[in-house]
Amino acid sequence: MIRDPNYAARVRASFAKQQFMATLGASMTTVRPGEVIIELPFRADLTQQHGFLHAGVVTSVIDSACGYAALTLMPPGMEVLSVEFKVNLLAPAHGSAFQAHGRVVRAGRTLTVCTGELRVRGVESVVAMMQATMMAVAGRSDRQD
Amino acid sequence: MIRDPNYAARVRASFAKQQFMATLGASMTTVRPGEVIIELPFRADLTQQHGFLHAGVVTSVIDSACGYAALTLMPPGMEVLSVEFKVNLLAPAHGSAFQAHGRVVRAGRTLTVCTGELRVRGVESVVAMMQATMMAVAGRSDRQD
Amino acid sequence: MIRDPNYAARVRASFAKQQFMATLGASMTTVRPGEVIIELPFRADLTQQHGFLHAGVVTSVIDSACGYAALTLMPPGMEVLSVEFKVNLLAPAHGSAFQAHGRVVRAGRTLTVCTGELRVRGVESVVAMMQATMMAVAGRSDRQD
Amino acid sequence: MIRDPNYAARVRASFAKQQFMATLGASMTTVRPGEVIIELPFRADLTQQHGFLHAGVVTSVIDSACGYAALTLMPPGMEVLSVEFKVNLLAPAHGSAFQAHGRVVRAGRTLTVCTGELRVRGVESVVAMMQATMMAVAGRSDRQD
Repeated sequence: MIRDPNYAARVRASFAKQQFMATLGASMTTVRPGEVIIELPFRADLTQQHGFLHAGVVTSVIDSACGYAALTLMPPGMEVLSVEFKVNLLAPAHGSAFQAHGRVVRAGRTLTVCTGELRVRGVESVVAMMQATMMAVAGRSDRQD
Repeated sequence: MIRDPNYAARVRASFAKQQFMATLGASMTTVRPGEVIIELPFRADLTQQHGFLHAGVVTSVIDSACGYAALTLMPPGMEVLSVEFKVNLLAPAHGSAFQAHGRVVRAGRTLTVCTGELRVRGVESVVAMMQATMMAVAGRSDRQD
Repeated sequence: MIRDPNYAARVRASFAKQQFMATLGASMTTVRPGEVIIELPFRADLTQQHGFLHAGVVTSVIDSACGYAALTLMPPGMEVLSVEFKVNLLAPAHGSAFQAHGRVVRAGRTLTVCTGELRVRGVESVVAMMQATMMAVAGRSDRQD
Repeated sequence: MIRDPNYAARVRASFAKQQFMATLGASMTTVRPGEVIIELPFRADLTQQHGFLHAGVVTSVIDSACGYAALTLMPPGMEVLSVEFKVNLLAPAHGSAFQAHGRVVRAGRTLTVCTGELRVRGVESVVAMMQATMMAVAGRSDRQD
């Protein structure tokens, strides 16, 4: 299923280039074939009007987890773009640290479909869930599609 | 259609409490019945691996624009929560400033459906589009649903 | 978790009123708390231009499975409406019989979030997956909200 | 923007092969570059438990309208597959005839993004809206990607 034995280093190198993940304080804690976990500590400057993580922050880390889960299964030289995603917000993102978990459901030649979830670390129930479509693009892409 | 003559002040006050919008450098430039525009200047620390706005940043400002567009039509005392949204990313978010535009399509008693778009300021073509469901909740809510 | 001991009969009675399920030839084979399975034999008059099940047929049976999974957990007297859903089509719906599986992820007072899948009967891989929001409404409802 | 002067005949020929559209009683009334309208008369055997069109029927005709709107802009020899869609159901599908309207928002080489709506014929308000991703595939395709 893996087409690049060096997948983990490639995924971590790309994640390190996502300056926004550093801005959020997010780190990639797990990289396995078809699966990535990103951790995010709570910070007050990431909140919405009720003091919980903003839905956009929630989406950001799940999107990166899904995108990089997709990238783990792509051949060398390919990069990943988010085509689209849908997020349901199930409960307030209330806790001291969060885990975004992205998993590949189906890896195609061009498109990869993933599911993702955000949980409070150490808590079973799901804060938010994503269903996403990712696309493989050759090399650095200046355009979508 | 407006049930709160004071809607604009209420919306702006809630937006001001979204610390994450300040973190992004976003500002609310337009508040009309059923319609909100949020502007976001480009910053390198908001980017993904190719130097464009991260999809999560794109989503964040469209989500806030849609949520507050919904809030403009809600009665006094109500607040707004994002139930779910779906985003299609049509083109790289590449430019010096962006406008997120949220509009109400149907305002129900409990649920409001919105569409949103992100454009590069001054450019017609759409960078990303959202279809979202928002929910009215009475007063400050500690829980979803 | 069950608020109506008579949930299975209530769900089956509602399904029996969905004339479109009879038109498709679909039957409800499993009703458990938070979970429903609907089976659909292949028929040529349900196909798209390549001879596979039309995406709308695929969606129809997963939507009903998700909606009725949600209804299993609602109190007596409530009915269920689909608020919205998103479907990814992963593979052609090609086979002699299909199973749509709906499961509740989170049951709230008003809104219930479900996931659903369509598989070819006896085959592990997923043909289509849904993430859906369902709403409880009191009695027969003539309007969405 | 049109890459096939014969686009309308090609779209109508493909629609004629969707046996499920005939099963529903749907007809294609408008084919323009980037835009398709499909009409559907009400029939009791297309309903859900409250006597309105089933959400799956609603989805079916909007999906076909969006897919064929995408196909109008594809080069000769290409066919169209639905990658994914999201539907919000805004009001009960209650009326004697319905119009599903699909429009292209962005046509890429591989992926085309569309929006679609269902209205009761002659009524302005929207019953359901779709945001969809369609894919161009060369010739008859036996598999999704």
